[in-house]
Amino acid sequence: MARWEPGARERLAQAALELFARQGFEQTAAEEIAQSVGLTERTFFRHFADKREVLFYGQDRFVSLFLDALAAARADATTLELIGVAVRAGTTMFNDERRSYSRLRQRIIDANPSLQERERHKLAGLAQAVAGMLRERGIDALAATLAAESAATVFAVAFAQWIQEGETRSFDEIADHVLAELVSVTATGVSR
Amino acid sequence: MARWEPGARERLAQAALELFARQGFEQTAAEEIAQSVGLTERTFFRHFADKREVLFYGQDRFVSLFLDALAAARADATTLELIGVAVRAGTTMFNDERRSYSRLRQRIIDANPSLQERERHKLAGLAQAVAGMLRERGIDALAATLAAESAATVFAVAFAQWIQEGETRSFDEIADHVLAELVSVTATGVSR
Repeated sequence: MARWEPGARERLAQAALELFARQGFEQTAAEEIAQSVGLTERTFFRHFADKREVLFYGQDRFVSLFLDALAAARADATTLELIGVAVRAGTTMFNDERRSYSRLRQRIIDANPSLQERERHKLAGLAQAVAGMLRERGIDALAATLAAESAATVFAVAFAQWIQEGETRSFDEIADHVLAELVSVTATGVSR
Repeated sequence: MARWEPGARERLAQAALELFARQGFEQTAAEEIAQSVGLTERTFFRHFADKREVLFYGQDRFVSLFLDALAAARADATTLELIGVAVRAGTTMFNDERRSYSRLRQRIIDANPSLQERERHKLAGLAQAVAGMLRERGIDALAATLAAESAATVFAVAFAQWIQEGETRSFDEIADHVLAELVSVTATGVSR
């Protein structure tokens, strides 16, 4: 049995981000990441299924934020209110201290198609999990899917804005604005 | 110069679908697809960048359907009307004769994560193209992105329903229903 390495996962994730940013994702091997924090490649792959996964560390907790908030929402909440609850729950992971980390991470992802694919896969997984929770709340399958996809879209669009250079508004403030705009875009009888 | 093979692309696409369905995507080599219709592997790769692409043949025409319809829409159309125009334009490629082909193709995609990733990538590309056209029509960037993502979601959800076993409604009819449901899901002040 390999010995337990306290905080190994966090150290690997942090080292990976720095190496990817400095020399590129493709140019950085798992072994190099591990060695930079005094660990072995084998330890790396005990914590992460592949090199891409290291950038999606914390995804389970992220999805749980959405699901826990939805489970706790008022029984008579409308689907729109539930979309708002889900999005706002997700934003709690992204405070101002995290913004520069998120910017750096996104630059790495944007530079690599395989990482973009993994990110879309994760977002699709989030939407599926949210739809499942909405169905558990008694919302029919079609409405649950559409509400979940809308929540994922609002989250993703707000996130992209939040990490823009020069953007100073909080994630919450941006998310509220994006959700209000989605309501406007899909409203009937509204002329522009 | 290789000689021109009339209809090579269509023949390769059809042969690939049949082989993927019969023996699996991973188990079918490009060379085998080509040989099954009397062509060479080299010809295959002149028509398709990789083996996955053969299942996304016609994507450019598909995106053009959306863009052409949006370009031709009334100048005073609301964003919701434009979402409807885009989705309905996309459905014209999928008539009843095509339904069994689409079912077979989707089964192949659903069985292979790398194909699902390519499909998500294509859907993201569609949404980006639609957003670009909406901006050209003078819609601001945020509204254009949200309307385009909503159109892509409605299209994808309606498509998944259209290819369900036993589903007999036309794609148009399903798409109208899904769009109406999206309007309801994102409406303010609606109680369930």
